[in-house]
Amino acid sequence: MTNGGTLIGVGVGPGDPGLVTLNAIAALKKAEVVAHFAKAGNASNARAIIAAHLTNGVEELKLLYPVTTEIPKMDAAYRESIRAFYDDAARTIAARLDQGRTVAVIAEGDPLFYGSYMHLHVRLSPRYETEIVAGVTGMSGCWSAIGTPIAQGDDVFTVLPGTLPEYELERRLADTDAAVVMKIGRHLAKVRRALDRAGRLDRAIYVERGTMANASVMKLTDKLDTFAPYFAMVLVPGWEGRP
Amino acid sequence: MTNGGTLIGVGVGPGDPGLVTLNAIAALKKAEVVAHFAKAGNASNARAIIAAHLTNGVEELKLLYPVTTEIPKMDAAYRESIRAFYDDAARTIAARLDQGRTVAVIAEGDPLFYGSYMHLHVRLSPRYETEIVAGVTGMSGCWSAIGTPIAQGDDVFTVLPGTLPEYELERRLADTDAAVVMKIGRHLAKVRRALDRAGRLDRAIYVERGTMANASVMKLTDKLDTFAPYFAMVLVPGWEGRP
Repeated sequence: MTNGGTLIGVGVGPGDPGLVTLNAIAALKKAEVVAHFAKAGNASNARAIIAAHLTNGVEELKLLYPVTTEIPKMDAAYRESIRAFYDDAARTIAARLDQGRTVAVIAEGDPLFYGSYMHLHVRLSPRYETEIVAGVTGMSGCWSAIGTPIAQGDDVFTVLPGTLPEYELERRLADTDAAVVMKIGRHLAKVRRALDRAGRLDRAIYVERGTMANASVMKLTDKLDTFAPYFAMVLVPGWEGRP
Repeated sequence: MTNGGTLIGVGVGPGDPGLVTLNAIAALKKAEVVAHFAKAGNASNARAIIAAHLTNGVEELKLLYPVTTEIPKMDAAYRESIRAFYDDAARTIAARLDQGRTVAVIAEGDPLFYGSYMHLHVRLSPRYETEIVAGVTGMSGCWSAIGTPIAQGDDVFTVLPGTLPEYELERRLADTDAAVVMKIGRHLAKVRRALDRAGRLDRAIYVERGTMANASVMKLTDKLDTFAPYFAMVLVPGWEGRP
């Protein structure tokens, strides 16, 4: 460790500003720099969630993802572009840490569960003091918003990305008690077919913007294939042997 | 819905009182009754976490699990005893709701993710207004406390109960990118053998009381088989193809 500042990965929860923790608020209070990832042209959800807790005079850093939509995701050029972006973001933050400043990186949900923060964490934690403030995950926010118990007792619970091949989704959905399928977006029709063949379609619930005021929730069987946002998810509750 | 009071399932997070959310605190402020599950003779963790937020004059209800340690868990008598207990607990709470009072049931972690609260929820939500306050899960608390990114990108993430048969644990651990094995207790040696045969033992981390001051964390290969508490967990981080 150097004598530099402290890096704090701050989970700010799934969207409702009321699902921010006391530790997250305390971290924002002591931070001299608050950073967040964002897409060019998109407002940051994470920043909106904690806007009320930003202190006067704090330096805000926007870490803008490179535009990669025209490069196939498994492509070496895509991976190289993303790697360079995270290296760059880590250097930007390291410069503040070297000045002895406390840097909070805010992250929707939980910072170490499918979040971009961890790319900074692995680059900076060998050299700087780090802290993590765990957060309520997006999926917890979703099943709570609709009051649907997801897993119980000896249930096996699986999180699946909608990007998996159809036969993989089908196989895994047939082999778990409870599941959440994330990153639905353009994979919606495929996910529905996989659930149907796995015999789980009738339990599946489609959730869009789960904890937001404009949430959209329905049985997956009622959802049209026309459009689903990237961050929509499908919940498959387990717990069939309830006492 | 009746004109009764409101039932609120309140997630209070993994143990650190700082990982309580603003919504949880607001729910405790408006609750006229605060209930929690407990084992006879054991102090309640959930209550300890939120003790500072209990208001004067609130009625506290302790829902004491029946003593079932002498009945095998898959036994019909066990299931009957547990079912009668939850029916009874639901009646106790319904009596308060019928008086128009707001009842908060506090739950460690997240109320609808492997929690006892959901047994009340399914019994009472058809008749009473209910709200859920999502919480930080115990597993998020654990991987955050040790700063270990658990899953990323297109990782498949699986939660497994340590109670599964050894071959099931091995098969599932070999077939996922990231995993959390819960309810370790007397299953420790079996879980270790399953991880070893699945080729994942060297990445596995053993965590006891993850977010408490007296946490105990080590590589699973360094943990003796002699004793592990029921709530210990084993983390198997994914994310091997990081950019």
